Amino acid sequence: MFPQGLPSLATFTDLYELTMAQAYWQEGMTGEATFSFFFRSLPPHRGYLIAAGIEQILEEIEHFHFTEDDLIALRRLHRFREDFLDFLAGIRFSGSVRAVAEGTIVFPQEPLLEVTAPILEAQLIETLVVNRLHVYTLLASKAARVRWAAGPQRLVVDFGARRCHGWEAADMAAYCGWLVGFEGTSNVHAGLRYGIPLYGTMAHSFVSAFPRELDAFRAYARTFPDSTVLLVDTYDTVEGIKHALHVASELQKQGYQLRGIRLDSGDLLSLSQVARQLADAAGFPHLQIFASGGIDEYTIEHLVHHGAPIDAYGVGTKVGVSQDAPCGDCAYKLVNYAGRATLKLSEHKQTLPGPKQVYRFYDTTGRMLYDQIGLADEPAPAGGQPLLHEVMRQGRRLRPAVSLEEARSHCRQQWASLPESHKDLHDPATYDVQVSVRLYQLTKQLTEQLQAELHLCNPEHSPSPRSGKD
Amino acid sequence: MFPQGLPSLATFTDLYELTMAQAYWQEGMTGEATFSFFFRSLPPHRGYLIAAGIEQILEEIEHFHFTEDDLIALRRLHRFREDFLDFLAGIRFSGSVRAVAEGTIVFPQEPLLEVTAPILEAQLIETLVVNRLHVYTLLASKAARVRWAAGPQRLVVDFGARRCHGWEAADMAAYCGWLVGFEGTSNVHAGLRYGIPLYGTMAHSFVSAFPRELDAFRAYARTFPDSTVLLVDTYDTVEGIKHALHVASELQKQGYQLRGIRLDSGDLLSLSQVARQLADAAGFPHLQIFASGGIDEYTIEHLVHHGAPIDAYGVGTKVGVSQDAPCGDCAYKLVNYAGRATLKLSEHKQTLPGPKQVYRFYDTTGRMLYDQIGLADEPAPAGGQPLLHEVMRQGRRLRPAVSLEEARSHCRQQWASLPESHKDLHDPATYDVQVSVRLYQLTKQLTEQLQAELHLCNPEHSPSPRSGKD
Repeated sequence: MFPQGLPSLATFTDLYELTMAQAYWQEGMTGEATFSFFFRSLPPHRGYLIAAGIEQILEEIEHFHFTEDDLIALRRLHRFREDFLDFLAGIRFSGSVRAVAEGTIVFPQEPLLEVTAPILEAQLIETLVVNRLHVYTLLASKAARVRWAAGPQRLVVDFGARRCHGWEAADMAAYCGWLVGFEGTSNVHAGLRYGIPLYGTMAHSFVSAFPRELDAFRAYARTFPDSTVLLVDTYDTVEGIKHALHVASELQKQGYQLRGIRLDSGDLLSLSQVARQLADAAGFPHLQIFASGGIDEYTIEHLVHHGAPIDAYGVGTKVGVSQDAPCGDCAYKLVNYAGRATLKLSEHKQTLPGPKQVYRFYDTTGRMLYDQIGLADEPAPAGGQPLLHEVMRQGRRLRPAVSLEEARSHCRQQWASLPESHKDLHDPATYDVQVSVRLYQLTKQLTEQLQAELHLCNPEHSPSPRSGKD
Repeated sequence: MFPQGLPSLATFTDLYELTMAQAYWQEGMTGEATFSFFFRSLPPHRGYLIAAGIEQILEEIEHFHFTEDDLIALRRLHRFREDFLDFLAGIRFSGSVRAVAEGTIVFPQEPLLEVTAPILEAQLIETLVVNRLHVYTLLASKAARVRWAAGPQRLVVDFGARRCHGWEAADMAAYCGWLVGFEGTSNVHAGLRYGIPLYGTMAHSFVSAFPRELDAFRAYARTFPDSTVLLVDTYDTVEGIKHALHVASELQKQGYQLRGIRLDSGDLLSLSQVARQLADAAGFPHLQIFASGGIDEYTIEHLVHHGAPIDAYGVGTKVGVSQDAPCGDCAYKLVNYAGRATLKLSEHKQTLPGPKQVYRFYDTTGRMLYDQIGLADEPAPAGGQPLLHEVMRQGRRLRPAVSLEEARSHCRQQWASLPESHKDLHDPATYDVQVSVRLYQLTKQLTEQLQAELHLCNPEHSPSPRSGKD
């Protein structure tokens, strides 16, 4: 039932990638280019980013090609030369990719991924690369905050499917949640696709569909006697809790155990306390209390801080769209072309030139100390662990796809090595990211050279209106 | 190149929809249910919403079914009864849908869409319905603000592809932009899919790939002599403008016209003024000035207010993810089951019961005055235009899909009828939405009845701990 007859993902590109491709092709510019993907800055209140989407984009790059239908549709635009479109038909990605491992902790200016390929190919995949790494990384970074706030002893489950920006985004949110250590997702599509454990309770509509709440609870318990979580806030939460405990007693007589109740509105702190008290008093100390409804890392932090006896959190909307940072400042920049390091000088957007490597330094207990960004071809500094590894060469992955389980395990290790001060939800410490002397010198030299050339090659050799006004 | 072997969209559902479905099935609950989709409130600073995604969801509902692969995967979860899974295999949507037209202006509490079907079917499509209507409506509503801020004489183009949450979300953003009157998109996938005009300029990487900016400009102009827009801020914007004008002169000698320049960073107000001044002085009064780079409705309002001579805006990130409101408070609620009106009483989430109709009232000049939400079966109030129309019956659409062009035209008419006070970007006037006397009475009566029953049916007949503390 997926939409049929759609253009291929190769056409998921900004038009200028195709027009520039024709210009490169027409100009005979077949030189090798390196593009670097990185975040320029951290979203507000963030101390780190969790790199994600690497595995997805590698899969897509490896299969990149225009279909016949794509080319027919592109032809109808009457923008491209026939011989260029014929050329496009044969285009595959033939370059190499260096990337950090899925789930690695990264910081601003550090490349998550570098693509080296004939410039036309490296450029055609730009929109796809940026789209994937941007949203996966934002969603994983948001989810990591939630995971941390909940602490290791409480369950966290992704409930975002209905508010994420499409089914694809919902699958990304479920994937990212699992990557950073959530216990599962409510999204069946994502669960089946990735093998993520599925969680679910019941909806208000189920309760409303019965004449009385108790009837609804009994019906659900009859159907799933050993895995029932009852939603208690449809009418009056405290009454709902009592109805649930009544059903718990009935189940107990049949040899079953009510798994839990879910609170989805109201003051979750006091309601969870009431629920715990009533459940304990009724002899159900193992009854779990689930909470949901507009929950994010801040809500959880507050509830945990005040000792709310909540065992599991369902996090939906705010986490699934990374509400406080639904977009980030990232870039896929040309850093090298045909052996020449390049950069741009645009205001607030200056880039670091050349293919790069990131080295991470740890203390003797394995905790992260600082990172150093250097040029890919300079000698590794003593004690630094390189983060970028070649994962694709001549358009083919050098190893099988990393499983989500492996990535999850890597992410857990990364997380353990990040000092707590960087995990604070409000005012995290700034992690120290240094630039190597050689990279610093290259940047300085290129900047000066470009500024000098700019004025020399200005065809009118006139001062700019701005300087004229001084 | 779309991911192969994915589960079908029927599995894009929260797990509880499937567990509730088994409970309904096991309990023999085949009664007809009506679910109503509406927004509970407006996002901050919004005066209205543009309903969108209706056409998409109708298409998906009509083709809703579980594939054999879905059922194999569901079976492996060991959560569902075999006979229930066999039953699921045959499930199609057999109900009816009433909806507002794609592109209609709507307000809180007003249903955008109502589904009436056997409860199990109406419930299984919930996640899909909410997912589509939520994000399309948010993106269309954000885009409408941008369209309005730019005014009719300036072009607005969607540049969001790389920062939207996936390719699917990017297509939605391009679609929504076009729906509310943008002039085009840079997203080739969406352009080919929906027939939306494509726009593109060039990237910084193109400029950086040449030894000198002027070489890059000349190369692009050689390739597309009659449709070139040069990006001038890679190194120094004012120098870049001069280089562009130099190329404009060269093109002119060959009988071509440089179409424009694009500013992507810095102070867009002063830079656009400098660009206009230099272009006019050089004899290019028709050279267009494009602006992009973190632009939203507020940036445009500011620039327009200060008279920035910008002819076209490329809006990407902030608009494509509806940055200030990436999620909204919407619901798909059971309002009727087996002939009985239902509601929920959860704190701050109380719903209006029963299948509904929205009537819109206009003044003599065709401007919207107020809306009235009533019950679907009460007589139409004199002068009120009904917004909801039956669009699907017995699982089949009653008319062919509405084309994006028709929806765009409808949206334009809707827009013209909305008084300006509701369009303000900061503090819009609140539109008057009334509730009919019958709907009010039904809500009141049901609320009282439920509250009374709640206490009567409480198995322990005891006061709640809260009231006990008073």
